[in-house]
Amino acid sequence: MSTRVLIALGGNAIKQADERGTYEEQMKNVNRTAEEIVRLIREGYRVVVTHGNGPQVGALLIQQEEGAKRGVPPQPMHVCGAMTQGQIGYMLQQALINEMKKQRFSVPVATVITQVMVRKNDPNFNDPHKPVGPFYDEKTARRLIREKGYIIKRVRPNGDKPYRRVVPSPDPIGPVEAEAIKRLVDAGVIVIASGGGGIPVIEDDGVLRGVDAVIDKDLAGEKLAEVVKADIFMILTDVSRVKLNYGKPDERDIVRMTVSEARRYMAEGHFLPGSMEPKVKACIHFIEAEGKLAVIAKLDQALEALRGEAGTWIVPD
Amino acid sequence: MSTRVLIALGGNAIKQADERGTYEEQMKNVNRTAEEIVRLIREGYRVVVTHGNGPQVGALLIQQEEGAKRGVPPQPMHVCGAMTQGQIGYMLQQALINEMKKQRFSVPVATVITQVMVRKNDPNFNDPHKPVGPFYDEKTARRLIREKGYIIKRVRPNGDKPYRRVVPSPDPIGPVEAEAIKRLVDAGVIVIASGGGGIPVIEDDGVLRGVDAVIDKDLAGEKLAEVVKADIFMILTDVSRVKLNYGKPDERDIVRMTVSEARRYMAEGHFLPGSMEPKVKACIHFIEAEGKLAVIAKLDQALEALRGEAGTWIVPD
Repeated sequence: MSTRVLIALGGNAIKQADERGTYEEQMKNVNRTAEEIVRLIREGYRVVVTHGNGPQVGALLIQQEEGAKRGVPPQPMHVCGAMTQGQIGYMLQQALINEMKKQRFSVPVATVITQVMVRKNDPNFNDPHKPVGPFYDEKTARRLIREKGYIIKRVRPNGDKPYRRVVPSPDPIGPVEAEAIKRLVDAGVIVIASGGGGIPVIEDDGVLRGVDAVIDKDLAGEKLAEVVKADIFMILTDVSRVKLNYGKPDERDIVRMTVSEARRYMAEGHFLPGSMEPKVKACIHFIEAEGKLAVIAKLDQALEALRGEAGTWIVPD
Repeated sequence: MSTRVLIALGGNAIKQADERGTYEEQMKNVNRTAEEIVRLIREGYRVVVTHGNGPQVGALLIQQEEGAKRGVPPQPMHVCGAMTQGQIGYMLQQALINEMKKQRFSVPVATVITQVMVRKNDPNFNDPHKPVGPFYDEKTARRLIREKGYIIKRVRPNGDKPYRRVVPSPDPIGPVEAEAIKRLVDAGVIVIASGGGGIPVIEDDGVLRGVDAVIDKDLAGEKLAEVVKADIFMILTDVSRVKLNYGKPDERDIVRMTVSEARRYMAEGHFLPGSMEPKVKACIHFIEAEGKLAVIAKLDQALEALRGEAGTWIVPD
């Protein structure tokens, strides 16, 4: 049986930080990403792909607000999340198909719209801190608090628009569509799922209901890795290796660490919260859930990282 | 083996004509739609679902334009189509899961983002006539023709904004994700696919590429029905039965017609172009592709129609 790899794509796989986010820019990035993924498929790996959606959902939230001025009802954030899954999934699956066609082989690809269950009483709901969407001036901030019940915080010390909406970032329990995704992967299909960390839903009196929140895409990706029984969980990002003493004079690369070492380094504060920390945390979860290998690597070194020639390996003790 | 039914949902399954299209309104409609579909699943039918996206993509196109005023790059129409597949698929799958939970049973559900291939040289590309998105005044119309290369037509005789963009409506060849969808259906999953007629793509020098166009959702649904080897193709809409002499004093219901009769009635002009005509045409295609039964019925009479107690049956000669 071929080795199953869950690939969690970082934001740079779709949009570079210095880009505006036009379709042409995003498609260029996605095409390059597809090249990297197809190298793995070609090598015999069975891949499942997940991805972030920060810039795309941010753009959609602004568009929802502006459209409202012309009478178009804005859709809630969780619906915007579903939209970005369609948007990015479409671009990724088209690029994967095109790259495989170029290399004269073919494996079916499909994007599955994915809800991810979170706990209704997740403590993170009491402490929303993830900024989303546009920046606001004080007047608009006050109106949105009143009219929409948004929680809005000052996120910049100065400027005309120092306010921004914040939403909770609850922990993922797992994909609601687990069974469908599992069957699809078992049937040999390259699946793209749980985009943007999934559409967050809670169960309320036995009824699923979308909530405005952001689930960390790596933590959600790890749950997806468990569902599809991935052998390897690989986070592709824009740094070549995880660092010890990040940003300090004695900073150095981690080539390989055991799950216990990873836990210790995390406790010692080596990893940046909201950045490398959740990635390492997701890898720890994966290994503790009987995963064989977790890898954090640079997007264009994916295959080298699987061979142990690049990236950081997190392994069982 | 259980009977496979491809259900093509009409616009009213998601948004009523007199509604603004808020999330709450749409979810209420979708919940009612899910009730009808679950009646079929409960009865033992294996269902595959497709749906329209006219109002949703229209809303998104306005939002794209308005967002551009705040510097958010508008995404092309085919990407907006992908977004609506995510949006509507999410709502439908959540509603289906909730309705099954209520009835204490469970079948996996998944929405698959679907590209639909069209011919690069489809003659419809030379005659764009499907109006999409907002209405424009003359100045804006001229600017969009110049800046974006839109084809814009006067669609109203009077008023401030008589202009609208028109796009081609090419014939579907079939879903690009056919193999993935087929495997998923074979694996026992309720699949939602080809939303809005699918994301239209052409093959250009061996490379798939999205195009701004609208594929008729019933014609695309019929191709999907062939892919999943549906026994029955059912179009659910807001009329109880197809009519002969539609809108005339001698109008009467068609309870049942053979495919030859359907062809003859169509040639005689009994069915409204752009309305009932493409629905009957899709049914004819299905029967001519070895389908057993095609049905056109009212959304809330789906099960009755399958039993032959409602709707219009189109059968082989």
